[in-house]
Amino acid sequence: MIDLHYAPTPNGWKISIMLEECGLPYTVVPMQLGRGDQYTPEFLKLSPNGRMPAIVDHTPADGGAAVSIFESGAILIYLAEKSGLFMPTEMRKRFDVMQWLMWQMGGLGPMLGQNGHFLLYAPEKIPYAMDRYTREARRLYGVLDAHLGEGRDYITGDYSIADMACFPWIMTHKAQGLTLDDFPNVKRWFALVRARPQVQAGLAVGKQEKKPMDEQARKIMFGVDAPAHAQAQQ
Amino acid sequence: MIDLHYAPTPNGWKISIMLEECGLPYTVVPMQLGRGDQYTPEFLKLSPNGRMPAIVDHTPADGGAAVSIFESGAILIYLAEKSGLFMPTEMRKRFDVMQWLMWQMGGLGPMLGQNGHFLLYAPEKIPYAMDRYTREARRLYGVLDAHLGEGRDYITGDYSIADMACFPWIMTHKAQGLTLDDFPNVKRWFALVRARPQVQAGLAVGKQEKKPMDEQARKIMFGVDAPAHAQAQQ
Repeated sequence: MIDLHYAPTPNGWKISIMLEECGLPYTVVPMQLGRGDQYTPEFLKLSPNGRMPAIVDHTPADGGAAVSIFESGAILIYLAEKSGLFMPTEMRKRFDVMQWLMWQMGGLGPMLGQNGHFLLYAPEKIPYAMDRYTREARRLYGVLDAHLGEGRDYITGDYSIADMACFPWIMTHKAQGLTLDDFPNVKRWFALVRARPQVQAGLAVGKQEKKPMDEQARKIMFGVDAPAHAQAQQ
Repeated sequence: MIDLHYAPTPNGWKISIMLEECGLPYTVVPMQLGRGDQYTPEFLKLSPNGRMPAIVDHTPADGGAAVSIFESGAILIYLAEKSGLFMPTEMRKRFDVMQWLMWQMGGLGPMLGQNGHFLLYAPEKIPYAMDRYTREARRLYGVLDAHLGEGRDYITGDYSIADMACFPWIMTHKAQGLTLDDFPNVKRWFALVRARPQVQAGLAVGKQEKKPMDEQARKIMFGVDAPAHAQAQQ
């Protein structure tokens, strides 16, 4: 059994989708980020960065004690190797998945995070920052669109953890101020991934627990009231 | 032989350091980012995101045609597997390296990149953004400091690609407005990594080719004059 420490956000959805896709049994440990569940001593032992998702695998492949993993990109690779699914073992195909997974982890995710922050959460409108991240968001969508436009149904040919990593971030396109009509290949791919029942099941996890962000939650997530060790990032 | 498409920046140094560390023969293909070498059609075939580093391995393990890889995190894993060095094969230790590598790729790198941008490159001083990213940079340094403070010489025990990924970004601490005196465990680790001759050799690669950024270079790297496909990020 795998414990999934989770809130319904793009990085959380990556893992709920993957767990549904590979059919591994799991238990959700719901987290309220707005009340600071990510900064409890117990959680920081699993995820010293104070960020979800994290997993605890009580039945690891080596038969030993439970294994805990943080960072969604590492969890996706772990689950792919555990299940033997959604990441090829052949070297060339494997590194094709790896490089696009890293592109999501290092580019698409963080930069859409910044774009969303300045569009939606920042308490003041800052044209320079909004312009900077909207342009970068468009650039990244354009990279994915061009890549998919070269005859690919999925990012690396077959459906993989690279698609599961990117999809939840592309789901946020309206909040990012973007329309998929400008990116027809992304639009086609998005519809294909979204139609998968396992993706729908992953997106439904914890949906009822999502709360609007109030001022106290905003302070904990973006402000100076979090523990010194553990402040601010969206 | 491996071709390294490279400029002397934190993400470039990760790979020049790793190649020096694992002793694989390589040829540097120097890139001038300020003149847009990252947007040439030839380079975009290797790295569709228009970002260096990228490698081309002309003697891959399977004996087949050359393999190209983009994204520094994927390249580090590729070189670790090719050389059998700096990433354990045992599952638990391997995923410890993987999760900290992902932490660098998804957190430390992108967020220090934003901090550096608003401190050094943005044409106007924007207090909200400067404060946001300085706080996040301090938080991330604090996470690393606390982790190393739990009796670790290196990030995951033995020296690994997780150290090589983080070190070049921590090198930029002065430009980030931070002092390592506030992070004593990071300071100790930093000195230990910096003292390695292979790290010094990696940092020396292409040093003489580094140019100050002029207005045209700034436009290409952050502005609207780059190809539409390929705009703005530092």
